[in-house]
Amino acid sequence: MSFIEITLDNHFPIQNLPYGVFSTSENACKRIGVAIGDYVLDLSIVADLFDGPALSKQRNVFKEPSLNAFMGLGPAAWKEARATLQKILSKEEAVLRDNADLRSRCLIPQNKVTMHLPANIGDYTDFYSSEYHATNVGTMFRGKDNALMPNWKHLPVGYHGRASSVIVSGTPVRRPIGQTRADETKPPAFGPCKLLDMEMEMAFFVGPGNNLGEPIPIDKAQDHIFGMVLMNDWSARDIQKWEYVPLGPFLAKNFATSISPWVVTMEALQPFVTANPVQIPEPLPYLQHSDPYTFDIKLQVALNCPGINNPAVICNTNFKYMYWTQKQQLAHHTITGCNVRPGDLMGSGTISGETPDSYGSLLELCWKGTKPLDLGNGVTRKFLQDGDEVVMTGFAQGDGFRVGFGECRAAVLPAVSL
Amino acid sequence: MSFIEITLDNHFPIQNLPYGVFSTSENACKRIGVAIGDYVLDLSIVADLFDGPALSKQRNVFKEPSLNAFMGLGPAAWKEARATLQKILSKEEAVLRDNADLRSRCLIPQNKVTMHLPANIGDYTDFYSSEYHATNVGTMFRGKDNALMPNWKHLPVGYHGRASSVIVSGTPVRRPIGQTRADETKPPAFGPCKLLDMEMEMAFFVGPGNNLGEPIPIDKAQDHIFGMVLMNDWSARDIQKWEYVPLGPFLAKNFATSISPWVVTMEALQPFVTANPVQIPEPLPYLQHSDPYTFDIKLQVALNCPGINNPAVICNTNFKYMYWTQKQQLAHHTITGCNVRPGDLMGSGTISGETPDSYGSLLELCWKGTKPLDLGNGVTRKFLQDGDEVVMTGFAQGDGFRVGFGECRAAVLPAVSL
Repeated sequence: MSFIEITLDNHFPIQNLPYGVFSTSENACKRIGVAIGDYVLDLSIVADLFDGPALSKQRNVFKEPSLNAFMGLGPAAWKEARATLQKILSKEEAVLRDNADLRSRCLIPQNKVTMHLPANIGDYTDFYSSEYHATNVGTMFRGKDNALMPNWKHLPVGYHGRASSVIVSGTPVRRPIGQTRADETKPPAFGPCKLLDMEMEMAFFVGPGNNLGEPIPIDKAQDHIFGMVLMNDWSARDIQKWEYVPLGPFLAKNFATSISPWVVTMEALQPFVTANPVQIPEPLPYLQHSDPYTFDIKLQVALNCPGINNPAVICNTNFKYMYWTQKQQLAHHTITGCNVRPGDLMGSGTISGETPDSYGSLLELCWKGTKPLDLGNGVTRKFLQDGDEVVMTGFAQGDGFRVGFGECRAAVLPAVSL
Repeated sequence: MSFIEITLDNHFPIQNLPYGVFSTSENACKRIGVAIGDYVLDLSIVADLFDGPALSKQRNVFKEPSLNAFMGLGPAAWKEARATLQKILSKEEAVLRDNADLRSRCLIPQNKVTMHLPANIGDYTDFYSSEYHATNVGTMFRGKDNALMPNWKHLPVGYHGRASSVIVSGTPVRRPIGQTRADETKPPAFGPCKLLDMEMEMAFFVGPGNNLGEPIPIDKAQDHIFGMVLMNDWSARDIQKWEYVPLGPFLAKNFATSISPWVVTMEALQPFVTANPVQIPEPLPYLQHSDPYTFDIKLQVALNCPGINNPAVICNTNFKYMYWTQKQQLAHHTITGCNVRPGDLMGSGTISGETPDSYGSLLELCWKGTKPLDLGNGVTRKFLQDGDEVVMTGFAQGDGFRVGFGECRAAVLPAVSL
């Protein structure tokens, strides 16, 4: 228990302690913080309290403007940092509890901070690891019998995304402009995207990297996975359809990818680990691991649209529906010798469950535009309109506490006029 | 004319002046240099000589360990830097010519330096802009009638690549390991790539970036293009074939991408501009420009294999064979509002000409393995073997001088044993 009062439904109890990067109006410098209840603990102020063997000579990582250096330290340092944080925030420990001056400097109400991207993202990769999602999309475009591609159950399909346009929750997203061809008998058209979609994903940040040419074996993969965030993989379906053959999604995805600001560590998620999905056929040995690395994280998407009174929940899904684990994703990504670096971001792919209310994209929820969503007050949606706001949330439910991710929220701005 | 003696076939006369990043055994710090004849001019030593209006307050860019900051300054600063360099290196100017002490500190023989990547590459994109290459590959896999995809002549097809594994010429490339499925009636196999290929490409470095949500219009695109390098887009054809549907190349390309170390500026290439290809159908207005932005750059690929006496030239091609210009690539890339940043790298795609000796990949040169290359001494190749070295060179021929790119060279190492 912390000396800071925390309600049962708060996302940031002492069992969580996610890391983020923030600034304040008084101090525009970006610095590293930890969310605790309704506060942010400024680690640049309390760096000296990290006095264990792994961190006492690495305290400078807490004075950086991004988490990359801390992410790069690896599991021993992460574990020690968590133990130190749990100690200094606990009811039993006087160092902060009884020092009003220090508390006033290092504990800042969350509503007074501006959050930034947690890391400089060197490379961003997106996987496609939900079987329900891949099956849904495949069924829509190729029919039920050819829904999953032949490679899908043999390897975690993925592609390289655009790192420069990963943005933090709260940053509005401008509707992209581009080339589309709805009618193949006519020339391509140009203009604002008409089929703007969201995708409910999660993503992990890479910890220590590997050298080029040296794959990360699957039994070491978890030492390279720092923590997770919520992610909205905004997608321009009409642009995607026309551009993506044969080299994959490009402009349809590169205008924005939103992530939640607080990185929840794998250590905080460990109590919520659950059985991995049964994988048939058995994957090749480089993708096999017997330890569970699937996590029970409840995920929800709400739409806030002009004309409705309250945000409408349009999706309830769960991270545990993933077919491929993050360990498998990382082992696969590096099997060629591809190097990853601290702060690289790896998305899960859209997380859809089995039932229609658990589908993670409007494409699936409205089944290619054939089943509009009724949001109340006579407002319906097939795809996103200007002014709509997408709000993603997620948490793992413990016994009397929640390990939460906060929000990944962004509103759609009208297209720029050219 | 420079006071430094330069032979007619040297790639780096005073008309060129490409920028790179180097270190020496005496000084391991990475610093910015300019190639001149057989020397490197160390800009960190002569930064004070850049005294024009655009650079006198920005000299710190020449003391950086990468070119990103200089790239970000834009055309006025680039032009002034080039004028200053041409002045201080000329026969008529005493400042270096008559100062033996300064010369001995700032002019270092090229054979005494180690070259590094010229910039921190935030994002790397690869296009697919040679019509001959796309037609050849399409013909092999889909037949002559469906060779080009319907979108190909309407937009410059491209995809996001892996930035972390872009390496500088001279760095050996380890043969990737991965999953393949040569025989669809059998389960996928695992092991070293059997169909390792090179791709002769060029790439440009982005100068000033744009804000997210604000496309770069095509008539401003050239102000955002700093200069060019040679590029080898190493490709694992057997891994690619099995993985790439539906999201595009991933592991087949992410184990290594080699570039030449010297960035030749667009200003140095301006004398070699030539008519753009005729584009039918006419592209959409956002992709139209009337000024020529196609460059006559002779390109050559040689293979150095165990058992042959001299490197065997296997391809003679030319950058002018590109269908889409770099201005079109950049305007397309940002039309959705995608932001680019100084130091981003954009590859051309394999550059193939019309005739079989100008094909830019082994896939095409050996036509899917059906026509092995005879390299002499009884040595043949369909794809790359361990120990093979690929040497790419390129230059534009002026009247009595060459604006050259030097080399992009790398040898293939055996796969790592797992």
